[in-house]
Amino acid sequence: MTIRKGFASDNNSGIHPAILKAIEAANQGHVTGYGNDPYTEKAVELFKERFGDNTEVFFVFNGTGANVLGLSTVTQSYHSIICAETAHIQEDECGAVEKFTGCKLIPVEPVQGKVTPEAVLPHLKGFEFEHHSQPRVISISQVTEMGTVYQPNEIIALADLAHKHNMFLHMDGARLSNAAVALNLDFRAFTRDCGVDVLSFGGTKNGMLSGEAVLFFNPELTKYTKYIRKQSMQLYSKMRFVGAQFQAYFKDDLWKQNASHSNRMAQLLESEVAKIPEIKITHPVEANGVFAIVPPRIVEPLKEQFYFYMWDEARSEVRWMTSFDTTEDEIHDFVKLIKQLLKNE
Amino acid sequence: MTIRKGFASDNNSGIHPAILKAIEAANQGHVTGYGNDPYTEKAVELFKERFGDNTEVFFVFNGTGANVLGLSTVTQSYHSIICAETAHIQEDECGAVEKFTGCKLIPVEPVQGKVTPEAVLPHLKGFEFEHHSQPRVISISQVTEMGTVYQPNEIIALADLAHKHNMFLHMDGARLSNAAVALNLDFRAFTRDCGVDVLSFGGTKNGMLSGEAVLFFNPELTKYTKYIRKQSMQLYSKMRFVGAQFQAYFKDDLWKQNASHSNRMAQLLESEVAKIPEIKITHPVEANGVFAIVPPRIVEPLKEQFYFYMWDEARSEVRWMTSFDTTEDEIHDFVKLIKQLLKNE
Amino acid sequence: MTIRKGFASDNNSGIHPAILKAIEAANQGHVTGYGNDPYTEKAVELFKERFGDNTEVFFVFNGTGANVLGLSTVTQSYHSIICAETAHIQEDECGAVEKFTGCKLIPVEPVQGKVTPEAVLPHLKGFEFEHHSQPRVISISQVTEMGTVYQPNEIIALADLAHKHNMFLHMDGARLSNAAVALNLDFRAFTRDCGVDVLSFGGTKNGMLSGEAVLFFNPELTKYTKYIRKQSMQLYSKMRFVGAQFQAYFKDDLWKQNASHSNRMAQLLESEVAKIPEIKITHPVEANGVFAIVPPRIVEPLKEQFYFYMWDEARSEVRWMTSFDTTEDEIHDFVKLIKQLLKNE
Amino acid sequence: MTIRKGFASDNNSGIHPAILKAIEAANQGHVTGYGNDPYTEKAVELFKERFGDNTEVFFVFNGTGANVLGLSTVTQSYHSIICAETAHIQEDECGAVEKFTGCKLIPVEPVQGKVTPEAVLPHLKGFEFEHHSQPRVISISQVTEMGTVYQPNEIIALADLAHKHNMFLHMDGARLSNAAVALNLDFRAFTRDCGVDVLSFGGTKNGMLSGEAVLFFNPELTKYTKYIRKQSMQLYSKMRFVGAQFQAYFKDDLWKQNASHSNRMAQLLESEVAKIPEIKITHPVEANGVFAIVPPRIVEPLKEQFYFYMWDEARSEVRWMTSFDTTEDEIHDFVKLIKQLLKNE
Repeated sequence: MTIRKGFASDNNSGIHPAILKAIEAANQGHVTGYGNDPYTEKAVELFKERFGDNTEVFFVFNGTGANVLGLSTVTQSYHSIICAETAHIQEDECGAVEKFTGCKLIPVEPVQGKVTPEAVLPHLKGFEFEHHSQPRVISISQVTEMGTVYQPNEIIALADLAHKHNMFLHMDGARLSNAAVALNLDFRAFTRDCGVDVLSFGGTKNGMLSGEAVLFFNPELTKYTKYIRKQSMQLYSKMRFVGAQFQAYFKDDLWKQNASHSNRMAQLLESEVAKIPEIKITHPVEANGVFAIVPPRIVEPLKEQFYFYMWDEARSEVRWMTSFDTTEDEIHDFVKLIKQLLKNE
Repeated sequence: MTIRKGFASDNNSGIHPAILKAIEAANQGHVTGYGNDPYTEKAVELFKERFGDNTEVFFVFNGTGANVLGLSTVTQSYHSIICAETAHIQEDECGAVEKFTGCKLIPVEPVQGKVTPEAVLPHLKGFEFEHHSQPRVISISQVTEMGTVYQPNEIIALADLAHKHNMFLHMDGARLSNAAVALNLDFRAFTRDCGVDVLSFGGTKNGMLSGEAVLFFNPELTKYTKYIRKQSMQLYSKMRFVGAQFQAYFKDDLWKQNASHSNRMAQLLESEVAKIPEIKITHPVEANGVFAIVPPRIVEPLKEQFYFYMWDEARSEVRWMTSFDTTEDEIHDFVKLIKQLLKNE
Repeated sequence: MTIRKGFASDNNSGIHPAILKAIEAANQGHVTGYGNDPYTEKAVELFKERFGDNTEVFFVFNGTGANVLGLSTVTQSYHSIICAETAHIQEDECGAVEKFTGCKLIPVEPVQGKVTPEAVLPHLKGFEFEHHSQPRVISISQVTEMGTVYQPNEIIALADLAHKHNMFLHMDGARLSNAAVALNLDFRAFTRDCGVDVLSFGGTKNGMLSGEAVLFFNPELTKYTKYIRKQSMQLYSKMRFVGAQFQAYFKDDLWKQNASHSNRMAQLLESEVAKIPEIKITHPVEANGVFAIVPPRIVEPLKEQFYFYMWDEARSEVRWMTSFDTTEDEIHDFVKLIKQLLKNE
Repeated sequence: MTIRKGFASDNNSGIHPAILKAIEAANQGHVTGYGNDPYTEKAVELFKERFGDNTEVFFVFNGTGANVLGLSTVTQSYHSIICAETAHIQEDECGAVEKFTGCKLIPVEPVQGKVTPEAVLPHLKGFEFEHHSQPRVISISQVTEMGTVYQPNEIIALADLAHKHNMFLHMDGARLSNAAVALNLDFRAFTRDCGVDVLSFGGTKNGMLSGEAVLFFNPELTKYTKYIRKQSMQLYSKMRFVGAQFQAYFKDDLWKQNASHSNRMAQLLESEVAKIPEIKITHPVEANGVFAIVPPRIVEPLKEQFYFYMWDEARSEVRWMTSFDTTEDEIHDFVKLIKQLLKNE
């Protein structure tokens, strides 16, 4: 049952061997469940080393769970959360945030996938007016859903805007490692140090089996987060295996190796398809995603051999994601196939 | 970091080697995420073989998620769910069911951990009366939280009562394999065949890394369950690794080997402590849990060496859980320690 | 369309003429909506005179709305609320509290309709344990649903218990005026002064058209209550008409006249039926409700002429409620009819 | 305490005398609570006469309650509701719809306050895709929040679009009577007959004390609506007084007299201010609201004498609402004051 790799999503890949080995190594004897174990403790330490001592770390199962836990912790149901129209919490979580927090989501038109202060500003109104959902959070995705990366100054501008209005800046970092590599910065430099308050730190899309972390940079906020995690069904009994994975993830900067490779593969793909006149790249390729408009007639035959998703049917815009295990050969085979299909008119 | 095994919970144990091997074997190439993969398909088939073709199977992360998904599928917020005062959904899920379904939980006094028709009956009232939460589900745990096991006729009686009132019978089967071994019955014989409508089928407490299944025996009910799973944050991207685990779980009846062993260890523990006059077993030991009243003075020194939980401080009642990896030696060492501590007056 | 008065509920009666006149008087010109008007302000003042300056007052539409607003203000979804099995929030609000707050309700067995510290105590557990819904509120009804009245010392005992555990005492005062009359105490003496934190103050059941007040005795708690009121659909646009009603309600102690009359009618009814050997009063008649076991054969013919509700079919226990507009003649006619029906064997 | 009338909102006015008289007339004897009374029954009949026999009618307290009840009845939490960015449910209900239904609201840019098929179309996607909130309802306001009125063909186009996708068309008719007058059509002709499925029928803003109706034109949908009404705190005990109000509302077409007058006053105001060059009307005046850009310097002094709301601070756009009790003199006085203030440079 060998399955050809495609460009559908970085979660279609498997587990990095070093991560799997760490799970195996942690599979010894008994430890207390639900996070009171040395593996989890060690992983928390590793996060604190990277993000600062007064960081609170909560492990959860998946990205939607991470976003919901982070946002639940800093909101009440009469609040609103401002995000890009293309945000994962707006488009791809089946309303999990509204269901669990009760908040209103306010989608704004992004520029290259990014929320801008200009787009947010008109929604910063109605404060103290009880008829109006109270603006509480600006939520951004880093890497964005369009494969672009916020620069530190862009993040600072949004954080300042949020804080000026007693609001929080939340970052959905499902692909945070890819962003770190793209920016060539430490994690902290473009998150906490830029004013991010709550961070979903993803692992699954960069070689982990499963497991994400929610980080809060103001421990005051998290007095009751442990109850929210349990109530939101995100408290894992055999938590040690998430802790063990994150240990491996940080060891020898595995996260960086994986994300660097993945980003490089996207750049390779971009540079190759850029040579094909029938194809038009639609967003700057800054991390591991390539968005392109391709002639409709080749989409289906292409997908048959290398699976990927149509992004915008109307424009025939597709999304190609690379992964830690994408190979140069696969890129070349893929590009070759594109060319063949284009010729077969 | 070798950690001594204790009797705290069957989720303090790790992963059975065969399960881990299955994860490793599935770690090849790319497959589509979120369950559209051959591993998941195969696992679904294995469930259908055991429970009947018209069974709908949804994999989730954990037991609380399984209960919430199952109950959400068959309820609206104006419904009530009747369960034992000791039920996991009542005592140990931090209100996840109320939060997510909006339903009222009605706890009834159990007999040896079991819900009885007599206890349920007074709550089957107020039908059609809009002021009253409408009774919709009877929820039972098999194995119960007190380590006892419902006999088929007991389940049938509750199912009949539920169905007579247009209600459903939900079974929280976090330890379903231990029950199957205790009853010496196929899974189906004491679930679907006894009238259970919705079943949380647990794997984590019997040797899996993580992963549970929610089974519905009337596919009509599940038209929208996939949306509820996503919205409840229980849809796993790399789902193949749950499918792979369940394949291993069913292969060569691994589930039965594990549960048989675990139950046997509990019986061994019971028979040994039964000989100690200072200790009083408080519930029939029918699966892998032993409840006992022990002299308070030995509790702490005992816990230091073999971790376990105080169940009822007031009565000095403790809970000892055995696991698939508990050894006879550990039981004997533990009993020896009890005797020593009791002597050290 | 003159309709015979019965004993179904004190909300089957209409509006006291003085209340209606106050509505008429307030029906002049324009005032700002949603409570920013002189009628509402004046009514708030009147409450502060009675309950103390640092009382926060929120008007709502109905009793369920009052309970939900009060409880929402002091809870998060991971909390639990302990109440009598017979409480209105448990039995008669179709799960509104669970739906809106997400909390778990823990019903305890009452003594004569009253929650006792003994019944609460076993549920004050699991603090800080994230698996367990965190106990947050003890909720009592004054008058109780069984027509009994808490004595101040009983309220103090529950308040002390709550506060000792960092919990709140909530009082559902749908019939608070009847309790005040029964106790012959000022409102404050048996609410705030006994440790009540949150109070639903009812008006509708004692002669108002509609309108209830939620009082908080710690203004710190209510920073965000206005948003919850709006979001819970309980913010009335033409609020002046609730303010006007409460002005009339307090003027010349109309509330006391109404409640005194109503309570007296219940006592009259009790004393009369007490003479009938076939009828057994089941609860102390302390306010305006009479509970009695009556021979089943007379129930239907009796209801045909004076409507009332069966309380407990199994025991043939009925509930008879008197109202501000019940007359002595109606009581005598009713008792006469009972006697007639009993004779007609 | 005579209060000068202003143009803040049609809910700043009081109760029409005929409505108040109807309340008084209904204030006789006892009737069963919660809607089982002849006044409510009669009012339901009157609605059926206007909207068709197979119409289901539910009375509630207020407009937000009406919208929530209507939308809750036809949605599940994994659905989305598409509405104008300016919709009351989006801007002015503090997130009540999200909180109670759990749904995602998708705001679209309106044209003169109206939702257009072109704006809706891009959001009709992701059907059957479990990651995406499932589009379920298009919600429009008639009259719109900008004082404009949908023409029947515009409603039909949206209804067709909704039904083609198995969705519903919801109409927030807080000012439905003003629309009926503006269109010179029977209620049914531009609601049910145009494909509206669920209708909030407002009364409070057109002379009632309080009370709205939710109408469903497919009785199949409403099997469980009564429970939702109770659970959403919108079930009124002394319901007869809502029924009585609606009887008066329909008698001698009081609704039409009120709305006609109100609309006419808006037209008068418009025609007068249209003559003032410094003022710019920003939306067609089709019902009882006038939106205008006025020189900022006159806003505060104007508001001091005739209260109204700033709509858009940035553009100095204000909203002036007329009411059933607005007089011609008031309009003229107001216009005179505007002119005076403009001269006083």
